[in-house]
Amino acid sequence: MVKLSLIQFAPEISNKSGNLKKIEEFCKKSQGDIILLPELATTGYAYPNTESLLPLADKLTQNQEIVKYFQDLASFRDSLIVVGLPEVSEQEGKVSLFNSVLAVDKNGIVEVYRKLHLFGREKKIFTPGSQKPPVFSFRTYKLSLLICFDWVFQELFRLLSLQGVQVVLHSANLVLPWCQRSMIARALTNGLFIATANRIGREREGLDELTFTGGTQVVSPQGELLGALNDDESILEVEFDPAQADKKTIGTNNDRIKDRREDIYKLEWVVKSSHDWEDLKKMAVKAKSNAYTPYSNFPVGAAVMDDRGFIYGGCNVENSSYGLTMCAERSAIFSMVEDKGRKIKKMVIASNSGVYPCGACLQVIAEFADEAEILILNNNGDEKRCRLSDLMPHRFSKLDLT
Amino acid sequence: MVKLSLIQFAPEISNKSGNLKKIEEFCKKSQGDIILLPELATTGYAYPNTESLLPLADKLTQNQEIVKYFQDLASFRDSLIVVGLPEVSEQEGKVSLFNSVLAVDKNGIVEVYRKLHLFGREKKIFTPGSQKPPVFSFRTYKLSLLICFDWVFQELFRLLSLQGVQVVLHSANLVLPWCQRSMIARALTNGLFIATANRIGREREGLDELTFTGGTQVVSPQGELLGALNDDESILEVEFDPAQADKKTIGTNNDRIKDRREDIYKLEWVVKSSHDWEDLKKMAVKAKSNAYTPYSNFPVGAAVMDDRGFIYGGCNVENSSYGLTMCAERSAIFSMVEDKGRKIKKMVIASNSGVYPCGACLQVIAEFADEAEILILNNNGDEKRCRLSDLMPHRFSKLDLT
Repeated sequence: MVKLSLIQFAPEISNKSGNLKKIEEFCKKSQGDIILLPELATTGYAYPNTESLLPLADKLTQNQEIVKYFQDLASFRDSLIVVGLPEVSEQEGKVSLFNSVLAVDKNGIVEVYRKLHLFGREKKIFTPGSQKPPVFSFRTYKLSLLICFDWVFQELFRLLSLQGVQVVLHSANLVLPWCQRSMIARALTNGLFIATANRIGREREGLDELTFTGGTQVVSPQGELLGALNDDESILEVEFDPAQADKKTIGTNNDRIKDRREDIYKLEWVVKSSHDWEDLKKMAVKAKSNAYTPYSNFPVGAAVMDDRGFIYGGCNVENSSYGLTMCAERSAIFSMVEDKGRKIKKMVIASNSGVYPCGACLQVIAEFADEAEILILNNNGDEKRCRLSDLMPHRFSKLDLT
Repeated sequence: MVKLSLIQFAPEISNKSGNLKKIEEFCKKSQGDIILLPELATTGYAYPNTESLLPLADKLTQNQEIVKYFQDLASFRDSLIVVGLPEVSEQEGKVSLFNSVLAVDKNGIVEVYRKLHLFGREKKIFTPGSQKPPVFSFRTYKLSLLICFDWVFQELFRLLSLQGVQVVLHSANLVLPWCQRSMIARALTNGLFIATANRIGREREGLDELTFTGGTQVVSPQGELLGALNDDESILEVEFDPAQADKKTIGTNNDRIKDRREDIYKLEWVVKSSHDWEDLKKMAVKAKSNAYTPYSNFPVGAAVMDDRGFIYGGCNVENSSYGLTMCAERSAIFSMVEDKGRKIKKMVIASNSGVYPCGACLQVIAEFADEAEILILNNNGDEKRCRLSDLMPHRFSKLDLT
């Protein structure tokens, strides 16, 4: 069983220290193993532009003051705190502002999620996220994070359910009337718990006044409301067993996940998470099982990741003329190129004995890589790691043609 | 504006002629441009096995008696009738029973849809469909068809919305309590109208008694209930403008469809419709735009369809060594093989001037095809159609090796 505390309150615009103080009081009162707070809980919502919010935004890396603040709060009852706040990030001299949630425990940052689907004027203020929502463990439970308007995009819930997520922690500043009752269908048809912590209160946005709707709630995989607040400042405490989400059956003959017709429709992440190598290894091994090798009986699978994080598989394809046989490595690269990929970052090559790529493949890899990390896998799962430059120290390239 | 008549009644089990008579009376009373009836409206629902329902099932091809019957009814007010009924089909000596809906107008069959997601004991009685739901026009409106338990599978609604469907006609025999209110979220987040015609009454299924829940309803893309019935025998007449579904915006800055993050997640049909050639041509032309041809400046795109109906793209990928250059045709085939495809059915090759495949590609095509239809496209959209046997009348194949 996990205890969830959802905190519904009205952050005061521009009063960050006041809001943090209030959050601290709430957190200390909460009984939850997990404490979920609304979107932009430290700063309030309706800023006119990026510049006005930027000074209140935090970097979300370990040892930042704000992280330590929540880390201390999480230590108080050994809980996981999930809080919405503006995140500033500097990369290659470019400053970006994200609408993020931070998940933190007594050891520091667990995950950061940057809102993928920005709502209304947020589009003018924030940079949208570019990574899929994290899937992570807390105790024995599998969790993920979403923010407010993300709720409209059903693909997220389905994909998280397919990844085994049991509880979606949804941090919100809702102003539209539809989310809360729609979450019943989202939870039910994906078979997971959805906890929405929404704020209350009003803020002026230009000429409009925004009214945040409260209605903080937790919905079960059976579409039941396990608890809900109205529009007052309050904590919702709900206890349930996340493992119930593992049961996807409906009645005796149906299953919300297994009954999906993957032969008819296909849903998948385009962007992969940080577990690149695991994804690549899996794909290479799977590709190997599809190799067409009636002549050599020497199957090889390959998976390549480009600089956009997209991954492609390939297997060897033999031919009765022998000379037109194609290697797994090149086959994967050709798929990448067809999908606009032009730069190889990582590659996994899987074969029974763990062979290195042939010279022809090295030449084609070199066409699309300044450098590439290559992992060679054999049947026993033994790994050899190398770089293109180890395998082909002197390259012939298009530069030699000019 | 379109007028929809949704007929809610209790078909009597095994009394097909009685049910047809009742349906006829309802249809003649209805004012709708479109008349939507429940699932298995001609026969009732709770049959113990395939054998007991088979004698009441119909072939759904033009000129069948049942088709003419509904065609006549549709002529009465020049309407479209959508009715659920058991369909028998014979292919290569194998008899299959489908849970289908027939859409028919005064000219005969418009579409037939075979239920993709079977519920409960249906799995023991029916063969599941193997084609995606049809997307078709009636007057100026774009419609699709779903049946009962299909409602759980959000992928269908999203994909139909992405194809521009305005109204989903949902023929049902619902016994679970969740569908009707969940359709609010389905309609709202996909921006389309959903009309559910459900039956009422009770039937005994083995030891259980099934109670069909009525609640026939129409929901708008704004999530409003445009009309709903309770659990009595009745016709629901609703009038609305399907073109409202074309507006996918929410507020001033958001759009339910355009805001989707196709860079993060990807949803697509696996099975393609009968418009194979159009799909293949589009894919080949798109692949061509991704060709890597810094040396020849001669881009080629190819798309191949295998015997499962799956399609794959490829483009040419050049190399500074020239000899390791790969053609678009082979690149596409390698992708097919990597995805377990072993038999080529159709292929489109797109280039500026409409060139034929090279000998090396012919040899690789031949490895995976007894025969293949090949369409050669040039920049002006001119098409040349041929077969592999036209291009390579005498083949060297693996048979020659033995």
